[in-house]
Amino acid sequence: MALRSVTVAVCLRQLFLARTPQRQLNLSVKSLAGSWGSRKAFQGKKAWKAWQESSVFDHDMGDCDEVLAPLRAAVKEQGDLVRKLKEEKADVNDVKKAVVELKARKKALEDKELALAPKDDFDRLKMEDALKRRFFYDQSFAIYGGVSGLYDFGPVGCALKANFINLWRNHFIIEEGMLEVDCSMLTPESVFKASGHLERFADYMVKDLKTGECFRADHLLKAHLEKLLQDKKTTSQQRDECTTVLARLDNYTKEELGVFFKKYELKSPLTNNSLSEPMDFNLMFGTSIGPTGNMPGYLRPETAQGIFVNFKRLLEFNQGRLPFAGAQIGNAFRNEISPRSGLIRVREFTMCEIEHFIDPSHKDHPKFPSVADLKVKIFSACDQMAGKSASQMSIGQAVEQGIIANRVLGYFMARIYLFMIKVGVDPDKLRFRQHLDNEMAHYAKDCWDAECKTSYGWVECVGCADRSCYDLSCHTKATKVPLVAEKKLPEPKIIDVVEAVPQKGIVGKAFKKDAKVIMEHMASLSEDQVVELEKNLKEKSEAEFQVDGKSFSLKPDMVTIKRYQKTLHVEEIQPSVIEPSFGVGRILYAILEHNFKVREGDEQRTYFTLPAIIAPYKCSVLPLSSNKDFEPLVQSLSKALSEANISHKVDSSSGSIGRRYARTDEIAIPFGITVDFDSLKEPHTATLRERDTLKQIRAPVDELPTIVKDLSDGKTTWRDVLQKYPSFEGQESTSGQ
Amino acid sequence: MALRSVTVAVCLRQLFLARTPQRQLNLSVKSLAGSWGSRKAFQGKKAWKAWQESSVFDHDMGDCDEVLAPLRAAVKEQGDLVRKLKEEKADVNDVKKAVVELKARKKALEDKELALAPKDDFDRLKMEDALKRRFFYDQSFAIYGGVSGLYDFGPVGCALKANFINLWRNHFIIEEGMLEVDCSMLTPESVFKASGHLERFADYMVKDLKTGECFRADHLLKAHLEKLLQDKKTTSQQRDECTTVLARLDNYTKEELGVFFKKYELKSPLTNNSLSEPMDFNLMFGTSIGPTGNMPGYLRPETAQGIFVNFKRLLEFNQGRLPFAGAQIGNAFRNEISPRSGLIRVREFTMCEIEHFIDPSHKDHPKFPSVADLKVKIFSACDQMAGKSASQMSIGQAVEQGIIANRVLGYFMARIYLFMIKVGVDPDKLRFRQHLDNEMAHYAKDCWDAECKTSYGWVECVGCADRSCYDLSCHTKATKVPLVAEKKLPEPKIIDVVEAVPQKGIVGKAFKKDAKVIMEHMASLSEDQVVELEKNLKEKSEAEFQVDGKSFSLKPDMVTIKRYQKTLHVEEIQPSVIEPSFGVGRILYAILEHNFKVREGDEQRTYFTLPAIIAPYKCSVLPLSSNKDFEPLVQSLSKALSEANISHKVDSSSGSIGRRYARTDEIAIPFGITVDFDSLKEPHTATLRERDTLKQIRAPVDELPTIVKDLSDGKTTWRDVLQKYPSFEGQESTSGQ
Repeated sequence: MALRSVTVAVCLRQLFLARTPQRQLNLSVKSLAGSWGSRKAFQGKKAWKAWQESSVFDHDMGDCDEVLAPLRAAVKEQGDLVRKLKEEKADVNDVKKAVVELKARKKALEDKELALAPKDDFDRLKMEDALKRRFFYDQSFAIYGGVSGLYDFGPVGCALKANFINLWRNHFIIEEGMLEVDCSMLTPESVFKASGHLERFADYMVKDLKTGECFRADHLLKAHLEKLLQDKKTTSQQRDECTTVLARLDNYTKEELGVFFKKYELKSPLTNNSLSEPMDFNLMFGTSIGPTGNMPGYLRPETAQGIFVNFKRLLEFNQGRLPFAGAQIGNAFRNEISPRSGLIRVREFTMCEIEHFIDPSHKDHPKFPSVADLKVKIFSACDQMAGKSASQMSIGQAVEQGIIANRVLGYFMARIYLFMIKVGVDPDKLRFRQHLDNEMAHYAKDCWDAECKTSYGWVECVGCADRSCYDLSCHTKATKVPLVAEKKLPEPKIIDVVEAVPQKGIVGKAFKKDAKVIMEHMASLSEDQVVELEKNLKEKSEAEFQVDGKSFSLKPDMVTIKRYQKTLHVEEIQPSVIEPSFGVGRILYAILEHNFKVREGDEQRTYFTLPAIIAPYKCSVLPLSSNKDFEPLVQSLSKALSEANISHKVDSSSGSIGRRYARTDEIAIPFGITVDFDSLKEPHTATLRERDTLKQIRAPVDELPTIVKDLSDGKTTWRDVLQKYPSFEGQESTSGQ
Repeated sequence: MALRSVTVAVCLRQLFLARTPQRQLNLSVKSLAGSWGSRKAFQGKKAWKAWQESSVFDHDMGDCDEVLAPLRAAVKEQGDLVRKLKEEKADVNDVKKAVVELKARKKALEDKELALAPKDDFDRLKMEDALKRRFFYDQSFAIYGGVSGLYDFGPVGCALKANFINLWRNHFIIEEGMLEVDCSMLTPESVFKASGHLERFADYMVKDLKTGECFRADHLLKAHLEKLLQDKKTTSQQRDECTTVLARLDNYTKEELGVFFKKYELKSPLTNNSLSEPMDFNLMFGTSIGPTGNMPGYLRPETAQGIFVNFKRLLEFNQGRLPFAGAQIGNAFRNEISPRSGLIRVREFTMCEIEHFIDPSHKDHPKFPSVADLKVKIFSACDQMAGKSASQMSIGQAVEQGIIANRVLGYFMARIYLFMIKVGVDPDKLRFRQHLDNEMAHYAKDCWDAECKTSYGWVECVGCADRSCYDLSCHTKATKVPLVAEKKLPEPKIIDVVEAVPQKGIVGKAFKKDAKVIMEHMASLSEDQVVELEKNLKEKSEAEFQVDGKSFSLKPDMVTIKRYQKTLHVEEIQPSVIEPSFGVGRILYAILEHNFKVREGDEQRTYFTLPAIIAPYKCSVLPLSSNKDFEPLVQSLSKALSEANISHKVDSSSGSIGRRYARTDEIAIPFGITVDFDSLKEPHTATLRERDTLKQIRAPVDELPTIVKDLSDGKTTWRDVLQKYPSFEGQESTSGQ
């Protein structure tokens, strides 16, 4: 851990789950109360002032660097201050305040960076329209009025998701030899009591005092402040306050939020009724297991606990040896107060989680060298505190420089990167952001988020954390089942043992029914306690002790003190866990955004450039027209494709071939086979069209399934196919008319 | 439907969900009350008496046919009676009683058949031990004391399940071009109110009046009766009653159960406290969606509803055309009162469901001819009522003879059969049992269960029902959204239209704010109603009618009666649905039982003969010993297998090669590659061993991944491999020593 000294050790220890940073921020810094502007926390006022004056409302884009420079300086200034306060061991509250200020400045910088970034011509409404129209996914139970935060995946989205999951299983579970489990979603309360979810997995909400309608406290406050900012009557001083509060919104406690609710006299946006004080709302869905009503249970809010509670079985399955990884693909549930942002914040979602258990003294990975040279975009805590941007860096360098805590973490980050690129994430819109020390749970050693840039900003899609031995210890504590591994010692170790051995007959006679607990007590004594017992028996001829509130007195004839040597071959260790955790819906959403395109020159023709490997259907089969002669060939092609397990779609509806191509483009089908009049001649051939290049070739019908299969599996490239087969330019491949 | 006249039309119409026959029976025949033995219902006493005297306690196995003959006769006698009662249009209660009696006799016959069947040497305890020890699956949350009815799948079970699901997706969704959806498990109450689950998806339970502990009423009664039967003091008359009640247990209402609870003075088996009357317990897990507590929700007890509520989107996705099939793979939840029988009755489970929507006037399938000759074991309602056994029959014949209601149902039954055999179900232990008419929901046209024979008896693993248009109508009724399809008429149809067109101005003036409902009322009139309205206006110069409890009187000047002709090109139809529904856990359990084997001559060496296509891991890689020289070859083989997406397990632990083979056999790994000293010589070769034949070959290391891949995908057979490569007999392949 010495390597980590490069980053600043701001470790506030109030934090809990590092799984979703926004939630976790809501949960955290709870003791930070009162007004802003303590002297110490605001030493860095100069640069902040300069930024407020110069840039936030400065819509002149000018030179990016120039605009961003004061914001960077403001972040750095505050970062330095936080560092200094820590070094001076300043009052904890001052440090906390300074950290909140640092985050506000970081957020301002990032917002500005996003605003200044060259606009891509992505049109979210247009994409959402396509997703809905072609039933990638849509709101659940729409004919019953719909339920917010619940989505149904249609045939296209479902195939996309199934392909994603299969690729994930191959990339992680099969290639890395992980141990997959499939555990119950229904979970008894005791498990979440131990894990901490029961107490702390909550968001703040306010209630309409008359109707009972609930709102997320931070959402209401944000909406109000944004309205104020748009209001021309708002003074510039009020504006300043609004932007300041907005920037800090994620970090307020419920008490602080309550102060603002009073100050701004916030009412229910629906009824204008008064609102309750902000309160905790646990995000787990509760239910009752069994008919008695005596076993409260919850739907799991993450899949990880299922792996932890099976640790012993998995260790045994792995023949008692570390390291090994458990993995799980499955659904989790969070009763969001107000779900939003489409697939990004929902109430039911699929996760893929890995728990890689390792010897804490040996955080290395044998395959690390194979990824050391891989370059990824790294946004270290250090750079974040210095107001810098993310930078391209090899995983090897990052570990060597102590930016990434260890090689196991680095190895997984590399594997995550490779997976994300494989499934279609744009590498330019993918970065690894390190949690600031105070963002992490106190037990975590290091934590990185793989974030994708979307129209919603940078969205956390994968978390990758070194969670130390926290989770296993929680369950050990709650169940008394030791979740530990044995480690062979490099060489046998001889240790001295001192034991208090009871004289069973005498103890039994003297204490009758209490004899058992007394003997258990003796067996549980530490070495020091045995030595003290021996001393007391020798010096006072008796030793007093208490068990279960009762006092007992031992006499010398009741105990023999034994000293001997024992050879140990193994030692017990508490494994550390590295946890990569994937939000499937979020990644799918990012992939869709990154691959949504409009054909040049035709605003109406949208399509998705999804890689063939993940595309919902691999191939379409289109007869050129509704001529009956095409049918046998279309059917035999469809059959051959089915037999090769190639998902495909036959579209023999009327409509020009161009219009039908457009339809297949819109559901991301990468390859299209068209049966035309030349196909009817022997030897039968058909054309094959590629979605992105719009190029076509002609190939024998018999070979087409294999060509498509190899293209979809990545065994060959479209470039190779273009070289091997004659190109075809006879029929329209683009026009939607 | 004329074809069905061969089977008897016993249609009681009290029945609800045909998804799990046992549950459904509990739910059904609710009005059947009072004592047994009405004259009409028991006309068939002779054969029944003969059976009771001759066979139930007759442990002399003798000749099966001889023993079974009186039972068959008893069933037939009662079957004939039921038929006769129906023909005579006898009192409904008498018919019901006769049917219950028929079922009791059928059960007695089946129990005896099972008891007389040649015993295979299957040892359930031994298999369960292997499943637990090798972590196929095990009780969830065991370190927290466990929760009954919840199971976690470990690496082996999980891989088995994932392979099962992928095969299912290929066999059904991809090969049949179905539209897969992935819908929310959380479901608002309104949906289950419409589907009927809220009211009727319940079992009977009794409660310990002091502790609140709950028991399934039928389970308690059964346990008590079985105890009585074992008690030597029980008289033969009491014995008779016990067996009679036991045979009818599934068919009692809660009132009837209550009578027996009183009669036998049943107490809680745990505390001996008094018990409540039997009561309904809804099996859905309830929760609350969102923070207000105003939206009650349930975890879905089946996946089907998700497909129904998306009908419109799917129809549109299919360009408005019938037929098409929606399919869903996902979890469902049932809060069983007392889960039992391992994976067979659990609280959380995976289902694969298909809803195939068709034009009710055209229940045909274009691919039917491809399966018509397939022979399967058919147990028709007719044969069941005649006391006969299941018989081998081709699907084509069964449809032709009207045993299977239509070709779509037949096609799916054939596809189900092919799938079950592919994944490892023993064809001799698979039958299709038709529901008796009174077992089916009243709306169902025909229903078959694919049942697997296990040590628990014949277990329903797949249901395949023609559910008519019931489900869509329910949701249409509840939401007013017409879930219908348009069908192109063979030729345009000209129809006469009569319409009552309101004179808006006059109606508006006359009725003011009521004008709107009045005009709506006029628009909703049927042709006959319009004609009557016209008549009244003409004859009485006014027409009275009521809307929303108010009376109105129309005058002639308010309405114009229009007559014209309209050309229709399409008609609206309510699609029928054929529903194949798979219980994944139950099928997996059956597959495990059917493939559990003990090596000849070694009781300790158990293994599973799972087909390679579904085996959890396809291949093991074993170095002959811990010699370091083997490592590079083992690693490169493992890498090559990973790259080919072949799941495999390297076992380089110490232990003889025979012992390690035994370990891989026990988790059903079909192929084992061993790296030995000859492997080190160039060109590198290794041995390949097959689990069931225990034969080995030697092949070049480079070729092994492809060989294993082709074997696992079914592209080649072990017989072919044996012919192509030299056999190897150098090292032990069987001994566990």
